[in-house]
Amino acid sequence: MSRVLKLTLAYDGTAYVGWQRQAEGVSIQGLIEDALTRLDGAPVTVHGAGRTDAGVHAFGQVASARVMTPRELPVIRRALNAMLPGDVRVLEVDDAAPDFHARYSAAGKIYEYRIWQGDVQPPFARAWSWHLPRPLNVAEMDRAARMLEGRHDFSAFQSAGSAVRSAVRTVTSARVGVREPGEDVSGGTGAGGQFVIVRIAADGFLRHMVRAVAGTLIEVGEARRDVGSVAALIASGDRAASGATAPAHGLVLVRVMYPSPPAGA
Amino acid sequence: MSRVLKLTLAYDGTAYVGWQRQAEGVSIQGLIEDALTRLDGAPVTVHGAGRTDAGVHAFGQVASARVMTPRELPVIRRALNAMLPGDVRVLEVDDAAPDFHARYSAAGKIYEYRIWQGDVQPPFARAWSWHLPRPLNVAEMDRAARMLEGRHDFSAFQSAGSAVRSAVRTVTSARVGVREPGEDVSGGTGAGGQFVIVRIAADGFLRHMVRAVAGTLIEVGEARRDVGSVAALIASGDRAASGATAPAHGLVLVRVMYPSPPAGA
Repeated sequence: MSRVLKLTLAYDGTAYVGWQRQAEGVSIQGLIEDALTRLDGAPVTVHGAGRTDAGVHAFGQVASARVMTPRELPVIRRALNAMLPGDVRVLEVDDAAPDFHARYSAAGKIYEYRIWQGDVQPPFARAWSWHLPRPLNVAEMDRAARMLEGRHDFSAFQSAGSAVRSAVRTVTSARVGVREPGEDVSGGTGAGGQFVIVRIAADGFLRHMVRAVAGTLIEVGEARRDVGSVAALIASGDRAASGATAPAHGLVLVRVMYPSPPAGA
Repeated sequence: MSRVLKLTLAYDGTAYVGWQRQAEGVSIQGLIEDALTRLDGAPVTVHGAGRTDAGVHAFGQVASARVMTPRELPVIRRALNAMLPGDVRVLEVDDAAPDFHARYSAAGKIYEYRIWQGDVQPPFARAWSWHLPRPLNVAEMDRAARMLEGRHDFSAFQSAGSAVRSAVRTVTSARVGVREPGEDVSGGTGAGGQFVIVRIAADGFLRHMVRAVAGTLIEVGEARRDVGSVAALIASGDRAASGATAPAHGLVLVRVMYPSPPAGA
């Protein structure tokens, strides 16, 4: 009897080519598939909710897989973590409905883009934040971000070469705020800077969408782009008119949402 | 005209042989000396407040150096950070009194030993916390830690082979507490665990002292050692009777204190 597992994953994407298996390099999908294949004794295919790019991190990526193992969930989690490197962790393993698919069952996802705004970037933040020494007008960035909320065609924030049927997505929340460095990062010594966090929840994301949004909002924060122009930018659908794609290492897939009652129940 | 600089440093010690220059490998001291030497055009010697071991981290290490450069402090900081790798950062540069010495002028230091207590260690905490899946009785650990406070001979927590004149130190505070993982580490997703933090402030530390104390307190937390026995352990001065030295990567030099008015003023 086969069963479908729902895996919740956290990873530091620094060392990886991204979620998806590639011809060259180590992918998160490949690591999870190899570990489940070893556990099952037969090839296992794993589907991820978000196809994070090379260098992008996750606190709550979700993956699904059909497996044969009859083992109990905590045993499976322990076995997988024993096989995986320390920068890829299985946080939870649950039994899911037979038709559960991490990507197609997802109702939405939350991504964060993290900027360290200050002269000196703390060593323990450099893996997962982009260092920008220049001051940013965070209130203006937040005003601009809110214009993304709602159902829009987001072609202006889609990487060239993407081939999706539609660029229409619903952004349920797009906000920019400040977060002081925690004890984990600064030891409470005051690191002479702050995180500026771009946090976006949507029913789906286009390729490089959050990073293009972050690049555009940074231009607003630096007064190189007018807040009011963002609505026109969305309407234009012109990728060339939006900001540069911010680097991958500042991006984190925070959480994947499923309909309630959860498809994984 | 020479001047004395006070440097405040943060580093991720993972890649280094420790603070002190060694015959082999890259040291923090060596990196700072090389950068100041390049800046000054003549050899510069750097003294550190705490001689952190290989793999030990710092949020607020302090170093002193006599230099010739007439440049302004922000320029020096920028130049040093441009020469140093991203895991070693100069947070602050100040002019200090001519007789200021980072180590001999220090009034005290604060170290933290960080334990991740939970089944699965978050990827972004693995560089700077020791993973212990077993539950710990934190209240008992804290009771035991407080017995260290005061002026004692800490030979029981000194590594064999040390050759200091006296093992008497004054611990001004020794506490154990719980810290929830911040957004930086867990993304607020609840990582199914917590940090147990051993925080010790003292006028000075012996070699491996905090790591030996942490190892001993963990035995108390696991009910393998009685709280009341810790006073007798201190009195015994017997290193063989205390706990194992906890691994270096959980240790952070948080701060160095100087007398007020600061010697660096």
